[in-house]
Amino acid sequence: MSAFTDRTDRLARRLDELGLDALLVGHLVNVRYLTGFTGTNAAFVITPERRVFITDFRYVERAAHEVPDFERVRGRDDLLGAVTEAVGKGRLGFDDAHMTVQAHAKLAARVGEEVELVPAGGLVEELRAVKDPEEASAIGRAAAVADEVYRWLISDHGLAGHTEHAVALALERRAQDLGAEGVSFPPIVAAGGNGALPHATPRRDAVIPPDTLVVVDFGVVLDSYCSDCTRTFATGEIEPEAHEAYELVLSAQRAALAATRAGADVREVDGVARDIIARAGRGDEFGHGLGHGVGLEVHEAPRLAPSASGVLAAGNVVTVEPGVYLPGRFGIRIEDLALVTAGEPRVMTSVPKELVTVG
Amino acid sequence: MSAFTDRTDRLARRLDELGLDALLVGHLVNVRYLTGFTGTNAAFVITPERRVFITDFRYVERAAHEVPDFERVRGRDDLLGAVTEAVGKGRLGFDDAHMTVQAHAKLAARVGEEVELVPAGGLVEELRAVKDPEEASAIGRAAAVADEVYRWLISDHGLAGHTEHAVALALERRAQDLGAEGVSFPPIVAAGGNGALPHATPRRDAVIPPDTLVVVDFGVVLDSYCSDCTRTFATGEIEPEAHEAYELVLSAQRAALAATRAGADVREVDGVARDIIARAGRGDEFGHGLGHGVGLEVHEAPRLAPSASGVLAAGNVVTVEPGVYLPGRFGIRIEDLALVTAGEPRVMTSVPKELVTVG
Repeated sequence: MSAFTDRTDRLARRLDELGLDALLVGHLVNVRYLTGFTGTNAAFVITPERRVFITDFRYVERAAHEVPDFERVRGRDDLLGAVTEAVGKGRLGFDDAHMTVQAHAKLAARVGEEVELVPAGGLVEELRAVKDPEEASAIGRAAAVADEVYRWLISDHGLAGHTEHAVALALERRAQDLGAEGVSFPPIVAAGGNGALPHATPRRDAVIPPDTLVVVDFGVVLDSYCSDCTRTFATGEIEPEAHEAYELVLSAQRAALAATRAGADVREVDGVARDIIARAGRGDEFGHGLGHGVGLEVHEAPRLAPSASGVLAAGNVVTVEPGVYLPGRFGIRIEDLALVTAGEPRVMTSVPKELVTVG
Repeated sequence: MSAFTDRTDRLARRLDELGLDALLVGHLVNVRYLTGFTGTNAAFVITPERRVFITDFRYVERAAHEVPDFERVRGRDDLLGAVTEAVGKGRLGFDDAHMTVQAHAKLAARVGEEVELVPAGGLVEELRAVKDPEEASAIGRAAAVADEVYRWLISDHGLAGHTEHAVALALERRAQDLGAEGVSFPPIVAAGGNGALPHATPRRDAVIPPDTLVVVDFGVVLDSYCSDCTRTFATGEIEPEAHEAYELVLSAQRAALAATRAGADVREVDGVARDIIARAGRGDEFGHGLGHGVGLEVHEAPRLAPSASGVLAAGNVVTVEPGVYLPGRFGIRIEDLALVTAGEPRVMTSVPKELVTVG
């Protein structure tokens, strides 16, 4: 049994629990997860008896290679006719978290009154949150490439004297040269006060000065899977308050990482880091969640945050990334990627977490 | 009056024509077009009296710089509360082509019964299809950078002996080195039989051989605007049928370009190229539309295709890109970018269209 048939079989069992007669999967990353297809137009229909993969003429040849496990049907551009044929009658689950109102109206008109459309978003994302060993291994390989890029940045490339934008571009190119498909998001390279903006864009006109902190947040895509890692570097001497804040974030990160295990409540894991930072009087300076799942997408389930709910499961791959941000002065964020187990998490990031000075 | 206030004023007049009391714009590229905002979470509400820009705490500072023309409100993460306050009562147009079923349900619950949600997708896209002079100029600058990359590819870099993937990467890096923000889509570099797949992915393991055809489809992003250009090169001697097919595509491209003017029916312009190719007995080998609009997105309105409808307007910027594809053997596509006027289109691509041999 392939990973793909195993995933769709598990999904089919969920349909049964939810009283659905069929599920329509249209969000492409979910189609890829369930079937292996990498093109840009496809739908996948799951019923108790059938698994029907649908694409258009442009991808028929690719699908023959990539989707050997399932029945394949060629549809017209909008795939609607083939979808309608495949779903049959009864209660059809659809992905309300991704399907547009317009697509829903078209689908409803097409399937007619014998089909009831039932919102069923998040079912594939639920499966995707728990990685099988091959997926965990792929994420680990992506993280290893990113680590190698970080080591090159520290030892060979450097920070001070380059613009933020030039460093971001250099990270991306080094990752490509090491075999990555690309970066999992536009790299963040943010020095001094720019580091205090959690979503800073690398500036073309900002030469990184000596004696400041630089937040670098970067990940790669390898074999379709993402990695994600943040380090904060010094470019020389930094003020005592920055040192102290760094040690605070590091201790919060280590404590939260130790609490990251199967069965732990996601809000409580977030709280481990948040409490440490708040007790030091910096609670207001940590304005985002502790972490998020990583896999085919760089942000996926589960979330570790004050507003999240649920418990961690063995096989989740999550970031643990507390930070503190002092507007106009500096930001600090330290982020590892970790595979959740029943015991200690398997940390996938190997770059040192102690403050490293990079010239 | 700024370009942004002008655009929103025109949109407000459309609301009146459509009997809408307000319009909610949530699709980010549309928000950017109307306000100038470049972040990743925002909404914009237009009523006859108000223009309300809403973002979350992360982007408040950026919005103060980028969106000086309009009232700015800080919302919570989902922006829903602030949106509800801004829309008031009555008929609220929403973007059914982009809003998900889930987001629509949340919005409906939040605004209550005094607001009627009316599908109104495509209104901003209608405006975006007609470029103002600053936009046309930005697209022209992007096209000029892409042309410079093409000339470098032809004169300095070459094709034969490199992998498709390496050439694609080299195009992207050269564009970045020339100041582009990036590429407008992953470049296509497809030699021989791979060129016969209209959506070929550059292969890491495919060294481009001598004496074949190579389809290169590539564009850059500069100042947020996209370019798009395809050329098909020879890497040496090619068979007579390939020469003949090249001349056919070129004559179809030139004829269609000459027919690309304000007032022309989009289906008829497509037909100009399609008829020429069909009369040569290759109608089945041209399996896609003739072209598409280009602007903030690399695919936008209008479409030139057998299934499209409407007429061209002065200020449209469209691709004209017929092709023929012989499965297993080769593909040929020639694509220019052109600004539609009342007379001859202003072609923005300056790379030669006659068959160029690149070693």
